[in-house]
Amino acid sequence: MENQHVGTQSIAFARPPYVLETASAGGLLEQQGPLGKSLDIALTDEMNHEDSWEKAESQMVLSTIRRVIQKSGLDRAQIQYIFAGDLMNQLTASGFAMRELAISFFGLYGACSTMGESMQLASMAVAGGYASYAVAEASSHFCAAEKQFRQPLAYGGQKPLYASRTVMGSGSVLIGYQGKPKAKITGITTGRVIDFGIKDSNNMGASMAPAAAHTICQHLNDFQVGPEEYDRIFTGDLGEYGLQLTKELVERDGYRPGERLSDCGMIIYDRENQDVHAGGSGCGCSAVTLINYIIPGLQSGKFKKVLFIPTGALLSPLSTQQGESIPGVAHALVLEAV
Amino acid sequence: MENQHVGTQSIAFARPPYVLETASAGGLLEQQGPLGKSLDIALTDEMNHEDSWEKAESQMVLSTIRRVIQKSGLDRAQIQYIFAGDLMNQLTASGFAMRELAISFFGLYGACSTMGESMQLASMAVAGGYASYAVAEASSHFCAAEKQFRQPLAYGGQKPLYASRTVMGSGSVLIGYQGKPKAKITGITTGRVIDFGIKDSNNMGASMAPAAAHTICQHLNDFQVGPEEYDRIFTGDLGEYGLQLTKELVERDGYRPGERLSDCGMIIYDRENQDVHAGGSGCGCSAVTLINYIIPGLQSGKFKKVLFIPTGALLSPLSTQQGESIPGVAHALVLEAV
Repeated sequence: MENQHVGTQSIAFARPPYVLETASAGGLLEQQGPLGKSLDIALTDEMNHEDSWEKAESQMVLSTIRRVIQKSGLDRAQIQYIFAGDLMNQLTASGFAMRELAISFFGLYGACSTMGESMQLASMAVAGGYASYAVAEASSHFCAAEKQFRQPLAYGGQKPLYASRTVMGSGSVLIGYQGKPKAKITGITTGRVIDFGIKDSNNMGASMAPAAAHTICQHLNDFQVGPEEYDRIFTGDLGEYGLQLTKELVERDGYRPGERLSDCGMIIYDRENQDVHAGGSGCGCSAVTLINYIIPGLQSGKFKKVLFIPTGALLSPLSTQQGESIPGVAHALVLEAV
Repeated sequence: MENQHVGTQSIAFARPPYVLETASAGGLLEQQGPLGKSLDIALTDEMNHEDSWEKAESQMVLSTIRRVIQKSGLDRAQIQYIFAGDLMNQLTASGFAMRELAISFFGLYGACSTMGESMQLASMAVAGGYASYAVAEASSHFCAAEKQFRQPLAYGGQKPLYASRTVMGSGSVLIGYQGKPKAKITGITTGRVIDFGIKDSNNMGASMAPAAAHTICQHLNDFQVGPEEYDRIFTGDLGEYGLQLTKELVERDGYRPGERLSDCGMIIYDRENQDVHAGGSGCGCSAVTLINYIIPGLQSGKFKKVLFIPTGALLSPLSTQQGESIPGVAHALVLEAV
């Protein structure tokens, strides 16, 4: 039986690879949120014992990958690939961490969709017979991201309520066939870049919604199923308004996802009591929520089958200065209980 | 017969995917160089009919991918994936080009090793049964890269003679099984991130040499062959001094590559008559040299089997400002005549 390309953008794995182990890290705000207690690594502060936010993020990536390897009981040499990415210019958070790991490295940039991209490629590597084990990783750091993409934190700038909060966190997932599975990855839908012309770089939710909706509808069409096939459909970091917009776009295509359409950015924080505006965002948002909410739900029987769709906005500060609109991309994985 | 993981970092493809079609673009300096006549797209100037260097690069990426699809005679819808990357912050050159293409997109960052990374993943996708056709792409733009990584061009800053010149160019390679092959990809070796502590961000050659040497030696060890297995071993963009250093490091490991070890950065320009200091660099350097020198050599019978190893330096301007050293990475592909 061979892996099958399904429809126009999807793959159904003949032999679904497993999520064998996970590890996650989070900052103080994330620790105080609903998923805080299950984080593997709780940062003491945003400096993470380093002398810059950027080095702090890189050290967080390194710790998270080391933790997932340690929890798996595998030897580092048994892992063939790391697929990883982050939001920093030139992927320095991931790239610098790799110096310490001596594992073949594919650097990825999918903005906040990176956990989807890394898990898709790690699954393809395992199911293609290229690797016994591969690690998928993504990270973001609130302070480093604000500094790079928006304003120096010290300005104390105010944001519109439709803006989201970049998660300080990272997640590592070990994918392979041999071991006790936490979940299985039965299919993937790789996103196209979609741009509806949004130019407000505070409005990440609206920028990514068209890509999220496109990937969801394409996925349902490719696999010839309706939204009811899934207990939940989790977008990555659209926040309240982006999620609403995505729902409208999906409904315009004739699907009725209803309450099963939800967003990691609405789960990672307690929006009643934490001042995070529209919700969480950043590569770490979907990564941490996957590891501490979605996969545990698949293990506990709360969910049988979910669609996980990290979403990314492919802008740069310079592209915004040059008057460009904001393209989005979204990569989906079908995760099932075992 | 299954794809085989060989040694610690390599894959031998059971059924080697083909390079079916190629297209490349280059700027004025590249047009005046030894490979200039065979470029598919000759930019009229560095603005490429756009109003910024960054948009010019993105337009160049789009044109190159459209050209490779057009030359192949395929319909866009027959191509499942584009694997692409560039040097711009947040991959805007590639990401913005993808808006126009409606093909599933994996964004990659491997600095100047990106052509190696994109071709490895495209080959894995095709040989794994995930795609009938995949495009691998990489690009760089001298002006946009200088502005982002070094100084405003208008400063007219001088550089040390060991610095290299970022190529204005891009290359697209169509990989698949069905069609008339230009070459076949029989194996790959995916690099690890190596850092010998070089901190001079003008000295890209020295920063990348340890990674190049590591991937070359690991490749030879994984496949249990000597350098004489290959007619030529082409690193990506080490330039004169980085190439010399790589040779010394490879020799220290007991191999004698001799004159067969060469560098795309030494081939793309006429260093006697073009003022490019140590040679060419940037993602476009190995991409353009592959398409206009290496693959034609495999087609003409000049080469039977070569090793192609794009090399990348994983620094950012900020990492240098923070006193970090420069990690390198290098990804190798075995290319054979058909």
